[in-house]
Amino acid sequence: MRKPLAGVRVLDVGTRIAAPFCAGLLGEQGAEVIKIEQPGAGDPLRTLGPYAKPGQNEGEGEGSDHPYSLFWAVEGRGRKSVTLDLRQPRGQELFRQLASHTDVLCENFRPGTLERWNIHPGALPRRLVTVRISGYGQDGPKSLLPGLDRNGVAYGGLLHLTGEPDRSPVRPGVTVADYLTGVFAAQAATALLYDRDIGGSGEGGVIDAYLYGSVLRIMEWTHAAYHNLGLVRNRVGNRVDHSAPINNYPSRDGRWVCITAATQANFARLCTAMDRPELIEDPKFATANARVANGGEINQIVSDWTALLDAADIEARCVAHDVPAATAYDAADIANDPHVIARGDLVAIDDPVVGPLRQQAPYPRFDGQPPPVPTGAPRVGQHTDEVLTELCNLKPDELASLRADGII
Amino acid sequence: MRKPLAGVRVLDVGTRIAAPFCAGLLGEQGAEVIKIEQPGAGDPLRTLGPYAKPGQNEGEGEGSDHPYSLFWAVEGRGRKSVTLDLRQPRGQELFRQLASHTDVLCENFRPGTLERWNIHPGALPRRLVTVRISGYGQDGPKSLLPGLDRNGVAYGGLLHLTGEPDRSPVRPGVTVADYLTGVFAAQAATALLYDRDIGGSGEGGVIDAYLYGSVLRIMEWTHAAYHNLGLVRNRVGNRVDHSAPINNYPSRDGRWVCITAATQANFARLCTAMDRPELIEDPKFATANARVANGGEINQIVSDWTALLDAADIEARCVAHDVPAATAYDAADIANDPHVIARGDLVAIDDPVVGPLRQQAPYPRFDGQPPPVPTGAPRVGQHTDEVLTELCNLKPDELASLRADGII
Repeated sequence: MRKPLAGVRVLDVGTRIAAPFCAGLLGEQGAEVIKIEQPGAGDPLRTLGPYAKPGQNEGEGEGSDHPYSLFWAVEGRGRKSVTLDLRQPRGQELFRQLASHTDVLCENFRPGTLERWNIHPGALPRRLVTVRISGYGQDGPKSLLPGLDRNGVAYGGLLHLTGEPDRSPVRPGVTVADYLTGVFAAQAATALLYDRDIGGSGEGGVIDAYLYGSVLRIMEWTHAAYHNLGLVRNRVGNRVDHSAPINNYPSRDGRWVCITAATQANFARLCTAMDRPELIEDPKFATANARVANGGEINQIVSDWTALLDAADIEARCVAHDVPAATAYDAADIANDPHVIARGDLVAIDDPVVGPLRQQAPYPRFDGQPPPVPTGAPRVGQHTDEVLTELCNLKPDELASLRADGII
Repeated sequence: MRKPLAGVRVLDVGTRIAAPFCAGLLGEQGAEVIKIEQPGAGDPLRTLGPYAKPGQNEGEGEGSDHPYSLFWAVEGRGRKSVTLDLRQPRGQELFRQLASHTDVLCENFRPGTLERWNIHPGALPRRLVTVRISGYGQDGPKSLLPGLDRNGVAYGGLLHLTGEPDRSPVRPGVTVADYLTGVFAAQAATALLYDRDIGGSGEGGVIDAYLYGSVLRIMEWTHAAYHNLGLVRNRVGNRVDHSAPINNYPSRDGRWVCITAATQANFARLCTAMDRPELIEDPKFATANARVANGGEINQIVSDWTALLDAADIEARCVAHDVPAATAYDAADIANDPHVIARGDLVAIDDPVVGPLRQQAPYPRFDGQPPPVPTGAPRVGQHTDEVLTELCNLKPDELASLRADGII
């Protein structure tokens, strides 16, 4: 199995999604990931729903006041858990020791927090690559504002563009700013490792990855058009101003099928798939410009056709004619799809609380190999003794004393 | 300026967004990016709107039948352009020569295309890292289906989760599957470079990055909950089933402000910001569970408050009390925002057709440095002679002959 980052060690002091996701990606490529958690409760993600079914939701065991989080089970996978109170000097000292054996540090506290704890990049070895994720970046007038995923989506400009023109904007259904930032940051961290180890400088570096920036980076032509044309782009739902037919079309069985057939070739194929070859030469639809001018009408024609068929039939007819089409898949569709099953896009991960738990596999793939299967999400502090013994040379009595003092 | 990938050479044979974006990211970190385009028209992205304003839209000069694409101006930046007809054996031979001087190849043809042209990974040096981006992956029963961004969003499960429960699902406002796949692929390519050059094997590798997979990878707890609970997750608009108040709230001046105040601490702060401290201890809202049970009512209270204020005032009041809040920013808001300006998140890139063109800056940042400024998007074939002379040792008469034969 290809593990390109084997030999790399990552410290994850993040919480919730963005920084832990960044660390986990590196882990799925072979890095060892050690998550540092606050003694006791650990990552707040452990408390968020949805929760495992009754009988399987005794999360963290005795003393836990919440059932077992399936969100944590997914995002916490593939790493070890070490408890360490970074608010106490002895915890900070141990952290600096751990960092001296580490290649990449991932954090997403508010800017200034690592500095307050004296575990900021300047206090750590120069060979360390530090990924700093925040809502608004490490400097600038808004850098200290609370920055959640939604803020990044809104402030970065994606929220305004998503939804129907006549309604409130709507958020993308998952925390895209968190994940997108995590992936950008993982790429940048890997690039700095490359530079450190290939360039020969031995210098790590600091990455400033901010939620709104990852969203802003993928805004297509939005800002160029504002600058060059004075055009303020607005949301257009599922249609596109200058292309038709494109939409999510309703099926007889209550599903939605996304069909993209605005180019000449695809439009002709769709007409054939609909058994309406006469539309290809109809002056109202014969050219791209004509279809845009009569966008409402051609979209309605497609919609009238789809409404008489089940989604699977619509897709099959489109596929038979090479028209891009896809049903808006839900979790059940994906779990039962032959292609997903053949490819192994969902893997059962052995979770320590609920047992085998099916979830999204590592991505992307190397050399035609199936994706690796990460270890299940650890319990809080499951690897504290193991890691601190190995990397900090702590003895059992020292561990006992630290534990008694609430430092681990 | 930190350029961690200096010395790396990338061939971009992609079109439109995903593979070119992957290549461009590597370029913004110092890699040399050479885009291979079909002689004549080049990347079809060059023909897509929106177009530069009249007088500046004479895109590709004589022979071009379309005005200048601002989408191309953004996505084509930071690379050289070489024309090469990969459908002809002489073009394929030159391509193999170029690849022998290359570290990373990025492509997003349908699976099997590089094989048909005999420029697939097996025909190229083993040290090459090949990024293969497709809609559905390199194998499996659906691998040959046409896969556009929307298919990835729909088939990967994000479309079903985005939008209001009572309406059609709605696509995220930009091509998130394309970009997300591009970033994942860039990370994986960097990891393989690291492995190749650090591990000492000298072996590159092949990355299978598929649009639906990047979307599936960020689906949070969706599949774990289906497996463990039999729960098929559905879209919920801007609210969250188990948290309140969270929503996009309307302002007096017709804007939408996203406020997230479901935790106890944030809810108390929001009540203070609204000058409604009595709500903090109101039994209907005093606990997270109570707020969920009375979610409609508390969201309405917040909405009634926001409706009396302009967006800027709502944000200012939330900020003053450390409540996460962000207006759904449009292009004009972003261009004029003091934080964005102070941080330099938009940069003017010197475009060869329209001149300085403001667009999103490279992301993320290294070592506290401002982002680099990429070169403007090249004209089709602008660097053909330069690159083929340097890397393939072609002489002027050979270039003339290739040009006469339509190969470059």
